[in-house]
Amino acid sequence: MPERSASDRTSEPTTPATASFSRRALIASFAATAGVAGVSGALVAEAREPASPGPHADAGRRVEPFHGAHQPGIATAQQRYALFAAFDLETADPRGGRLPADRVAANFAQIMERWTVAAERLMRGEAPGPIPANVRDAPADTGIADGLAPAGLTLTFGLGPDLFDRIGRPEQRPRRLRALPAFAGDQLQAAWSGGELLVQICGDDPQVLSHAFRAIRGRTPGLARLRWSQQGFLGRFGDGTPRNLFGHKDGTANPRAGTTAFDDTVWVTAPDEPAWFSGGTYLVFRKIRMDLPKWDTSTAQQQDRSIGRRRDTGAPLSGGDEFTAPDFERAGPDGTPAIPPDSHVALVRGAPMLRRSYNYDYAFPVATGPSGGAHDHGGDGPGHSHGDHPHDHAAAGHDSYDSGTLFCAFLRDPGEFVRAQRALAESDRLNAFIRHTGSAVFAVPPGIRPGQHLAAPLFPPR
Amino acid sequence: MPERSASDRTSEPTTPATASFSRRALIASFAATAGVAGVSGALVAEAREPASPGPHADAGRRVEPFHGAHQPGIATAQQRYALFAAFDLETADPRGGRLPADRVAANFAQIMERWTVAAERLMRGEAPGPIPANVRDAPADTGIADGLAPAGLTLTFGLGPDLFDRIGRPEQRPRRLRALPAFAGDQLQAAWSGGELLVQICGDDPQVLSHAFRAIRGRTPGLARLRWSQQGFLGRFGDGTPRNLFGHKDGTANPRAGTTAFDDTVWVTAPDEPAWFSGGTYLVFRKIRMDLPKWDTSTAQQQDRSIGRRRDTGAPLSGGDEFTAPDFERAGPDGTPAIPPDSHVALVRGAPMLRRSYNYDYAFPVATGPSGGAHDHGGDGPGHSHGDHPHDHAAAGHDSYDSGTLFCAFLRDPGEFVRAQRALAESDRLNAFIRHTGSAVFAVPPGIRPGQHLAAPLFPPR
Repeated sequence: MPERSASDRTSEPTTPATASFSRRALIASFAATAGVAGVSGALVAEAREPASPGPHADAGRRVEPFHGAHQPGIATAQQRYALFAAFDLETADPRGGRLPADRVAANFAQIMERWTVAAERLMRGEAPGPIPANVRDAPADTGIADGLAPAGLTLTFGLGPDLFDRIGRPEQRPRRLRALPAFAGDQLQAAWSGGELLVQICGDDPQVLSHAFRAIRGRTPGLARLRWSQQGFLGRFGDGTPRNLFGHKDGTANPRAGTTAFDDTVWVTAPDEPAWFSGGTYLVFRKIRMDLPKWDTSTAQQQDRSIGRRRDTGAPLSGGDEFTAPDFERAGPDGTPAIPPDSHVALVRGAPMLRRSYNYDYAFPVATGPSGGAHDHGGDGPGHSHGDHPHDHAAAGHDSYDSGTLFCAFLRDPGEFVRAQRALAESDRLNAFIRHTGSAVFAVPPGIRPGQHLAAPLFPPR
Repeated sequence: MPERSASDRTSEPTTPATASFSRRALIASFAATAGVAGVSGALVAEAREPASPGPHADAGRRVEPFHGAHQPGIATAQQRYALFAAFDLETADPRGGRLPADRVAANFAQIMERWTVAAERLMRGEAPGPIPANVRDAPADTGIADGLAPAGLTLTFGLGPDLFDRIGRPEQRPRRLRALPAFAGDQLQAAWSGGELLVQICGDDPQVLSHAFRAIRGRTPGLARLRWSQQGFLGRFGDGTPRNLFGHKDGTANPRAGTTAFDDTVWVTAPDEPAWFSGGTYLVFRKIRMDLPKWDTSTAQQQDRSIGRRRDTGAPLSGGDEFTAPDFERAGPDGTPAIPPDSHVALVRGAPMLRRSYNYDYAFPVATGPSGGAHDHGGDGPGHSHGDHPHDHAAAGHDSYDSGTLFCAFLRDPGEFVRAQRALAESDRLNAFIRHTGSAVFAVPPGIRPGQHLAAPLFPPR
């Protein structure tokens, strides 16, 4: 990858070019082919130099293709880091009052155009290009990824339920896109929920993610406002299923990319969906806080029976190995089902979705009071056996110590998630250890071809 | 690395063993040899099985030695992730009043003993061992690192200025260990400052860090309370100097491990220091928030002249390449010094320290109000050129968006940092873009031999 050069600092408009594509052959069937030039002129520019590995490139050299029938970051082998950021379109008119819908729509088109250009460049390991109307003589790029390989970077964009009314195109809203209902036990915080636009940034180098997020966010002022962001990670489990912060494998039942089961689970093909959305998918996001001190002081049997699987091997409690199908009829030694009917595995069975979740461990993200975030256990002193373990922490500290799962699922129908989550909210044994504190749902448009931008299908020529 | 087995779940006391050491030959000159068995019986146990690479081990297989003349995580090649956590000893007596100093000292010895045992095992990629008096039938380990290689994990422990009075051993306090003075412009938050005990956890896999931190913290209830924690990262710069979030290389002037300059900079040898501290060092920690929107909208020249180096190459503004010595006498085209006297490089010159800092980017760590963290820019609408860039964010959003540098320096005399920081606080051009919001200083004891624990030298037989 070339270092960002001084030429990136010019604010000359980029010129469209027909660069050669050395990457994966573009898949033939594009769903969204209409309205390519429907918004403005020089939309998608190819950078002038092809990506080449930098001096320190290693496994991080992996480059994911931006173009294709589907957006990247979904069927892509899961990277080790993720940043989810939700934005709302600007609605306030600086001259007072609210912006009219057509102005908001134009802003939306502009932001998607900027993001499309930036995402394509960033995924190639290039600087994201100049920001229109940026400060004179300010560098076009932050430079924090200079010398870094793309490390499998992907950017994936989603559209929230309120967006379509906001831009005056309610008829284009995907049919299954609506805010998730309230579930029993939800303790959602508005600040971590909802959003009109979503950007999912995944990759194997957190500094590359930080760079990409800054580029994405730097293109929003005047057009949109950041609503929330969340960051997660996975351990280096290689080809193995990643473990969550309960120590259990998470994602065992996922369909494998390239299979019919995967396609049937993820990609939208339903005839009642708007034509532009064919090949898209839905993303359900839940911020799920885990009460780790409580978990750590429960017994191994309680833990495994909450999940319905053995922690060590990931095998269902009905026997076999990690990938053995759970046998919900099989009885255990005491005659009751080996997999408790109220275990997590039993309750989510049959809900088709691609889980692409990440762990998060923010520890104490902010000051929690004059005692300096020291609420990590009660006042029990040493020598009291019941006071000598992390359970002390549970009472007071759970509110301030923030760690858990950034649940992220892609599926062709969010209704499947709703059905599963209703069952879980009702009786999941895991509920004693988790709390849902954030929630959002988005329609993820299909992929695009070079020259398109992600929102173009919403603006057909008329 | 072996999977944590069911045998880890026993709560039998571990037995001391004389395991063979296949790692780096232990350096001959140990400073701390007194009082090995001064505290209690079975202090440091060797795990029964040697570490072996796991099925998915890759570059993460790197194992750093725990024992040696110095603690790990200092001369160690900098890993990609760091977690800094500060604890305070428990002083409240559960029966009312305050614990006497000898009881606090015993608690301190116990926690250091537990941490020593856990750290040694964790660095080998093993489960940290059972927690004394843990809940019956609770797993001894969280299992979240099962299947993960150690990935260069190091744990490094430090002792804060107030500790020595707290444990009734003021005479053992290192002579240069005192709270840092206030500096002009400091905006320190108590919740992110100070601490009696520090744990620095570094490694190349964030889930391994999360695992280690949970093990460390799980050994504190009843003995100590978590005061603050901070997490940072570096990009995959390979052998190159890492870049901070201003895009500049950070650490260019560092001494190289294995050189006399390094040893002279880092390791304590002064005759006025307590004997037990010989071979130790001091750690200065500063949480430095960066105003990225302000930085991103300043000109390239302003940026480079604030640092005194070129962002792209890291070369001093007096010319040459990254590793050319800055020439503070050299004049630029306008006759003034090419490196401004109030640039960062000019002001810190001659301050010997090993910088081992990390970037942090917490984005919006928590809800910032009813509008959901949406304070990322002012009300300027599109089309206003001055309102169409990230500078809008600076006024309102800087308080909630938290990113910057976790400055961490090791040096034989914190007075060197104080001198440099006084000069910086006075006139550093960078001050327009940064704010110091956290501060702490610790004495880092020397390394230990197998069978010792890190606080043993403080408890000589008497």
